Amino acid sequence: MLTLYYAAETCSLASHIALEEAGADYSLVRISFARDEQHSPDFLAINPKGRVPALVTDRGILTETPAILVFIAQTFPKARLAPLENAFAFAEVQAFNSFLCSTLHVAHAHRMRGHRWADDEEAIASMRRKVPDSVGACYDVIERRMFRGPWVIGQSYTICDPYLFTIAQWMEADGVDPGRFPNVADHRRRMSQRPSVRKAIAAELA
Amino acid sequence: MLTLYYAAETCSLASHIALEEAGADYSLVRISFARDEQHSPDFLAINPKGRVPALVTDRGILTETPAILVFIAQTFPKARLAPLENAFAFAEVQAFNSFLCSTLHVAHAHRMRGHRWADDEEAIASMRRKVPDSVGACYDVIERRMFRGPWVIGQSYTICDPYLFTIAQWMEADGVDPGRFPNVADHRRRMSQRPSVRKAIAAELA
Repeated sequence: MLTLYYAAETCSLASHIALEEAGADYSLVRISFARDEQHSPDFLAINPKGRVPALVTDRGILTETPAILVFIAQTFPKARLAPLENAFAFAEVQAFNSFLCSTLHVAHAHRMRGHRWADDEEAIASMRRKVPDSVGACYDVIERRMFRGPWVIGQSYTICDPYLFTIAQWMEADGVDPGRFPNVADHRRRMSQRPSVRKAIAAELA
Repeated sequence: MLTLYYAAETCSLASHIALEEAGADYSLVRISFARDEQHSPDFLAINPKGRVPALVTDRGILTETPAILVFIAQTFPKARLAPLENAFAFAEVQAFNSFLCSTLHVAHAHRMRGHRWADDEEAIASMRRKVPDSVGACYDVIERRMFRGPWVIGQSYTICDPYLFTIAQWMEADGVDPGRFPNVADHRRRMSQRPSVRKAIAAELA
């Protein structure tokens, strides 16, 4: 049995969708960022980093979206969510997700979480102003150089797809016009119609 | 044959050390950040993100340290650089490296690369001032909650070790006192004595 600790409208949606795609037996625990529950002693005992997602397994607790996504793909191989038998293709999947995690998500985080990297309000406001540029530059590389279509790595749906979809939900709020990135926008539209995605979003909004 | 594009004193050292540990047949190409070679048309054709490391393989080009490290571990399984047969243990390795990539390295990058996230000099200076705190907070979690010893995940040396070592080289420049983190400091000292590490560093300084 798996338990996913998630927060609404965060990157934990990617792991949630992957659990649905995998046909996993899992339960959900909602963490409210509005009530700062991610910094409560109870949650810090689960994830000392105070972040979501966290996935409680029979073996222990896992954190970090790229790691959880691969764990789901390996634990439910019949769902074929990653090219597990091919080291190069698997590394391409990992490289894409690492870019989302360490560059695109980080650029986005400067809109709402600037306090992580500066203390004064003017610097935090300055970071916020640059988000449309820095996030847009990431989508530019994805659109022109990384995205193969119809899915991120080409013909196969993988753990890259729910992760890109999740972060791409934030484009408008980040001041990025989806019209500049037709591949990404079309992918987002198609993803939003998948039953697994609809079910995961409905559960998080319930 | 593998070719690693690297720059001195950057995170590409982790992949370089892993290639040494794996006994891989590889060559090196140095990219000079001082001459801005990472943004040259030649290098952008290899990595459109303008970053190191990039690993050229017979199948294509790989980027992103966590992905390259796993690729090396999978391609050279005899070196036993990751618990490839155990999805949970493998996910723990991945989670550690993802934290280094997306949180610790990102905190560090606000010292030298603030222009990625803000345009005005005062905001960039403000980011620089917070680096000792934000980087120190990452090492605090590693020291108290993540590091098991003698190696990152416990008894086995893995791809987590060269990555932590590489980033920990920057502690003093980031304004973080290694004396606060005896496990990390001792790990760094032991790593610096390994033949693979000495050979990689010597090659990069040559």
